[in-house]
Amino acid sequence: MRKLAVLTGGGDCPGLNAVIRGIAKSAHQYGLEVLGIRDGFRGAVEGDFMPLTLNDVSGILPRGGTILGTTNRDNPFAYATNLNGVTQLLDRSDDVIRNLKERDVDALLAIGGDGSLNIALKFANKGLSVIGIPKTIDNDLMATDQTFGFQTAVDTAQEALDRLHSTAESHHRVMILEVMGRYAGWIALYAGVAGGADVILIPEIPYNLNRVAQSVQQRAKQGKKFSIIVVAEGAKPFGGEMVVERLVSGRFDPIKLGGIGAKLGNDLEEQFGMETRVTVLGHLQRGGSPNSYDRVLSTRYGVAAVDAALEKEFGIMVALQGRNIVRVPLNQAVDKLKKVPLTDPLLITARALGIEMGD
Amino acid sequence: MRKLAVLTGGGDCPGLNAVIRGIAKSAHQYGLEVLGIRDGFRGAVEGDFMPLTLNDVSGILPRGGTILGTTNRDNPFAYATNLNGVTQLLDRSDDVIRNLKERDVDALLAIGGDGSLNIALKFANKGLSVIGIPKTIDNDLMATDQTFGFQTAVDTAQEALDRLHSTAESHHRVMILEVMGRYAGWIALYAGVAGGADVILIPEIPYNLNRVAQSVQQRAKQGKKFSIIVVAEGAKPFGGEMVVERLVSGRFDPIKLGGIGAKLGNDLEEQFGMETRVTVLGHLQRGGSPNSYDRVLSTRYGVAAVDAALEKEFGIMVALQGRNIVRVPLNQAVDKLKKVPLTDPLLITARALGIEMGD
Amino acid sequence: MRKLAVLTGGGDCPGLNAVIRGIAKSAHQYGLEVLGIRDGFRGAVEGDFMPLTLNDVSGILPRGGTILGTTNRDNPFAYATNLNGVTQLLDRSDDVIRNLKERDVDALLAIGGDGSLNIALKFANKGLSVIGIPKTIDNDLMATDQTFGFQTAVDTAQEALDRLHSTAESHHRVMILEVMGRYAGWIALYAGVAGGADVILIPEIPYNLNRVAQSVQQRAKQGKKFSIIVVAEGAKPFGGEMVVERLVSGRFDPIKLGGIGAKLGNDLEEQFGMETRVTVLGHLQRGGSPNSYDRVLSTRYGVAAVDAALEKEFGIMVALQGRNIVRVPLNQAVDKLKKVPLTDPLLITARALGIEMGD
Amino acid sequence: MRKLAVLTGGGDCPGLNAVIRGIAKSAHQYGLEVLGIRDGFRGAVEGDFMPLTLNDVSGILPRGGTILGTTNRDNPFAYATNLNGVTQLLDRSDDVIRNLKERDVDALLAIGGDGSLNIALKFANKGLSVIGIPKTIDNDLMATDQTFGFQTAVDTAQEALDRLHSTAESHHRVMILEVMGRYAGWIALYAGVAGGADVILIPEIPYNLNRVAQSVQQRAKQGKKFSIIVVAEGAKPFGGEMVVERLVSGRFDPIKLGGIGAKLGNDLEEQFGMETRVTVLGHLQRGGSPNSYDRVLSTRYGVAAVDAALEKEFGIMVALQGRNIVRVPLNQAVDKLKKVPLTDPLLITARALGIEMGD
Repeated sequence: MRKLAVLTGGGDCPGLNAVIRGIAKSAHQYGLEVLGIRDGFRGAVEGDFMPLTLNDVSGILPRGGTILGTTNRDNPFAYATNLNGVTQLLDRSDDVIRNLKERDVDALLAIGGDGSLNIALKFANKGLSVIGIPKTIDNDLMATDQTFGFQTAVDTAQEALDRLHSTAESHHRVMILEVMGRYAGWIALYAGVAGGADVILIPEIPYNLNRVAQSVQQRAKQGKKFSIIVVAEGAKPFGGEMVVERLVSGRFDPIKLGGIGAKLGNDLEEQFGMETRVTVLGHLQRGGSPNSYDRVLSTRYGVAAVDAALEKEFGIMVALQGRNIVRVPLNQAVDKLKKVPLTDPLLITARALGIEMGD
Repeated sequence: MRKLAVLTGGGDCPGLNAVIRGIAKSAHQYGLEVLGIRDGFRGAVEGDFMPLTLNDVSGILPRGGTILGTTNRDNPFAYATNLNGVTQLLDRSDDVIRNLKERDVDALLAIGGDGSLNIALKFANKGLSVIGIPKTIDNDLMATDQTFGFQTAVDTAQEALDRLHSTAESHHRVMILEVMGRYAGWIALYAGVAGGADVILIPEIPYNLNRVAQSVQQRAKQGKKFSIIVVAEGAKPFGGEMVVERLVSGRFDPIKLGGIGAKLGNDLEEQFGMETRVTVLGHLQRGGSPNSYDRVLSTRYGVAAVDAALEKEFGIMVALQGRNIVRVPLNQAVDKLKKVPLTDPLLITARALGIEMGD
Repeated sequence: MRKLAVLTGGGDCPGLNAVIRGIAKSAHQYGLEVLGIRDGFRGAVEGDFMPLTLNDVSGILPRGGTILGTTNRDNPFAYATNLNGVTQLLDRSDDVIRNLKERDVDALLAIGGDGSLNIALKFANKGLSVIGIPKTIDNDLMATDQTFGFQTAVDTAQEALDRLHSTAESHHRVMILEVMGRYAGWIALYAGVAGGADVILIPEIPYNLNRVAQSVQQRAKQGKKFSIIVVAEGAKPFGGEMVVERLVSGRFDPIKLGGIGAKLGNDLEEQFGMETRVTVLGHLQRGGSPNSYDRVLSTRYGVAAVDAALEKEFGIMVALQGRNIVRVPLNQAVDKLKKVPLTDPLLITARALGIEMGD
Repeated sequence: MRKLAVLTGGGDCPGLNAVIRGIAKSAHQYGLEVLGIRDGFRGAVEGDFMPLTLNDVSGILPRGGTILGTTNRDNPFAYATNLNGVTQLLDRSDDVIRNLKERDVDALLAIGGDGSLNIALKFANKGLSVIGIPKTIDNDLMATDQTFGFQTAVDTAQEALDRLHSTAESHHRVMILEVMGRYAGWIALYAGVAGGADVILIPEIPYNLNRVAQSVQQRAKQGKKFSIIVVAEGAKPFGGEMVVERLVSGRFDPIKLGGIGAKLGNDLEEQFGMETRVTVLGHLQRGGSPNSYDRVLSTRYGVAAVDAALEKEFGIMVALQGRNIVRVPLNQAVDKLKKVPLTDPLLITARALGIEMGD
């Protein structure tokens, strides 16, 4: 084991740079060289590499984003390639393997979400020495207790709720905050409890608009003339469709056209005459400096991936289970979505506090 | 001079509570009693008052919003009143004067924007002892160098730009941030310079989409594959209309339907094939704890208003000019919009930095 | 079960108000009444109670400190009492029991550290229905995976490290940050990794000054002319004494006279000619708004304590184990200090990053 | 005018990098080349230069410190030089002039405090084309309304006061915060008003300990069992000496031995039996990301300095006066300390609020 390569794929997430730094610093301790690959699997296909010395990772721990760049598109097994003026999707995976071999790379560390980990698994099946590091800001990966970036996103959403609180209270309004969470409501649930929300709507529990409205009216009767609603982008009314999926199937950004937050606000205004205001957090949740929790977790993931490489354990993903970082076979890790179960302790806590979950 | 009353009107703004506390604390030093009026002029009409002792204002300095509540609707001179089951707009200004007289209030301190200050002026013209304290988060009032809350809103917008920067850089995207500023681009200009924006679009300078696109393309040629655009909600394309006015004339919230940020993003995608992402800061700019600048300024406004009351100077508004708080006749202060002049020193600085202003 | 009473004891900690709110809100859901006791066990002896309705806990979730007040002194079993002009330590525990009985309190919820939990245990042994909620910002209680306030303190220390970094780098200096942790180095370890420290010194590992100096010199040789050292207040040189204990045995505050941080800085200057600057975080770690992690954890503790009361499980402490809040007998929970073991995963990670631990 | 050189001298300060970036970006617009000089005048003597292209300043706007490095020691007119094994202070100013000439530098931009600006003046008197940019976190330079970094330091101190507030209130204690300000109390005054301090002690007003104690006791009588005191490091008791000067004349860091904050705390404990806790903010005030106010001001200073160079106005310092950046002759700008006058509007406001100033 003499040389590692690392790439970041998928949407950016606070902590990516901390993982990269953790890899570079611990590799240095063990006398390993590290190469960075630019823009995820695009750079792996195109041979776009850069050195990652101690100097290159100096000062990146607090910074959001990824110094390597990322894309959420390029797949080496179906890579958009210009052939005689026509763009075709070709299997370019051998280019990746050749690029790594030419640079004497002994193992590839792929930091990414389900898409990237699926590609990593395919490379593992082709015999490449691959180690996956899970990344999903939604924290919806079954194999790991927690993904990095999630806790920072929850902080961001909670701080937004703190801000909206004073406006809600001063103006006696219903303030709605739409947060990330297409298929799982973890950010909404955690930020909602942390931010003192009155209503939390998540994809796992289709909501009944009447219940939401009753909850707001009930508070008003008790003298609280405002309410705070947190809604995950993937939430949907009972019997209704998921707005985000409708939007994604088209070509538009949900933020531009208005997602579930906008729908909910309009519905409450039209059907119940409530004065509502909607805020969509959007990309603010991805940016910014990772909090200390995520910096520690990211660093641990990076170090653990180098440890696995040193012990020649490949085809695995590092994962947090309890207080330990463990190794999980990639083929057991991918495509396993972790939704909020109805028995989740925090969900039960939310109900015990009187938070309306919409059902 | 024995008793003051204070109310807050219009949209909430960081620093309202600091003004209220400044009034109550300095009034206490001079042996004056202070009453708070709930929900702006609504409480003045309805007689909804509360005491404001030292205890009532303890701990409110860091808090956003207003402990008195506010509305941006109720006008005592045209007050929605139910008469025999029919809602009519009646002149209820005499109710306000009677409510103040019944409680032995010697002077009314009105914290508010143009709407509230206009009402204050009308009361002054009816002989009431009124002092205005200017409030506009957009900082677009001619008579005062700076309004409280503005600097905090700029901080909030700049922090958002810091967050978007890392995503923009990691994904090689054009990130658009829409900030407040319906008629004046102060927030966009200050936050844009502070946040390192590449393009700043303000209502005062109708923008040329080609120039915006060229600026992004120019950067890409120099190796910067991302750009950050700040756009004030009231910005408009050259020859085009202002999206926010179109929306406001209807019944919908601009955030729900998509304002100028969404339009700009779509236009750059459709006409120039750029990958864009839009974030609308919206109400996040109004909430949160005021920064130290605004806490100091708000406190000074509050103290200065009590000073004016003690010296029986009424029909005036307190205003910051240079380092001093001065008094300006209300009739000269209202309805004077302060737009960004083309000769503004910071605008010239922005151009010297190479920031594209769209013209 | 109809009425609960709650008190907070020991040093303040971010999240205390969130626990109180969690108790009050879930108690309200179950139709229970809640009383607050002022200033820890002092109020229990003196009969200083206050109601805790939904209104009383409204808006306290983001606030540091405790609305109930706290002391780290008063022990009902040895309570400073003025008897005929002479202050004597008397057993006033029966006064506490009587005060609770007179107010029809069915169970006492005591939020506190080792001191308060020991008192709670004694009351349990006297037959009182007591439930403990653990509070130690140092996170050094064996029975629970994590205490609330710890993660916020780590955030605070990490943010301080981020600030010191730029000064260290600009001035080519050794910057030393002294953080809390009298007997356990958890804050130093977590904040050190999160803040990119070069050296971390904790009470569990007596440090060798030569190793610290060598590490700084080694970095200088590699072109890094600055170093960041985090030192827990309870750290001590190998063979030396703990400065904080020497100070505590006297009557002075360690911050005033200079603790281990000051000693380390002086030693590095005098023995190795290094330019050092020392910052003592002190009380800044206790204050401020809890982060989202601690708000969630605090809320869960509060709700879990009410659950235990409803199920009439007394003489226990609620504790986090894995993802669940469990119940631990008080007599097994107190006096069990959780130090950083040499096998701690994060300690091993720190070494793998090349962080000098002083041994 | 084809090439500029820039250096940073003296203690670091939030906004230094923003000035450097402002210089580099506007110089680029005008087709000028920029060189950076490392570690202030040390690099000027030793010939330690680096290029400052757009790429070099990319991403530095939000970062504290200075990418050029700084020292608060080296003076080319009395430069510690090793001659035959003996260190002597030699006039090396001609080396600086030669180094600049060799690199075809047309003008030197020196960012620094009184020390650096005095050196700049001497170079101007020797015929060098020099432009000064003022830097003092204490904001105590007469020629300019405001220096960059000050407002960020006030934010930092105010946030510390917010944190201490909750502990003070929960524990019924006197909390003392020592902030920067050796000869002028601007930070203490602004942060004290912004942070809701009860007592503010500044160098300009020697304090009477009895008055401080009475103010605390007066609050206790009114039911406020805690008080917050902000003290500038250069404050001193009436008739007493300045602790910071005593310490600086020796070899120790004031933070290590305890400055005026520690003295005040001890005095209040010993003479009045008050329970006090002292926090020394120290270097935390210098670090961290500049706030938006300082980023704008720093950027303006940088751009204005390039403007002056283009117009060949040398021997001057750029300064903020009202809303404009003006040019002040260096010989009129240096050695003019701006203390807080007794007629300062904010000082008068503080008294109107009932804040005890110690006199």
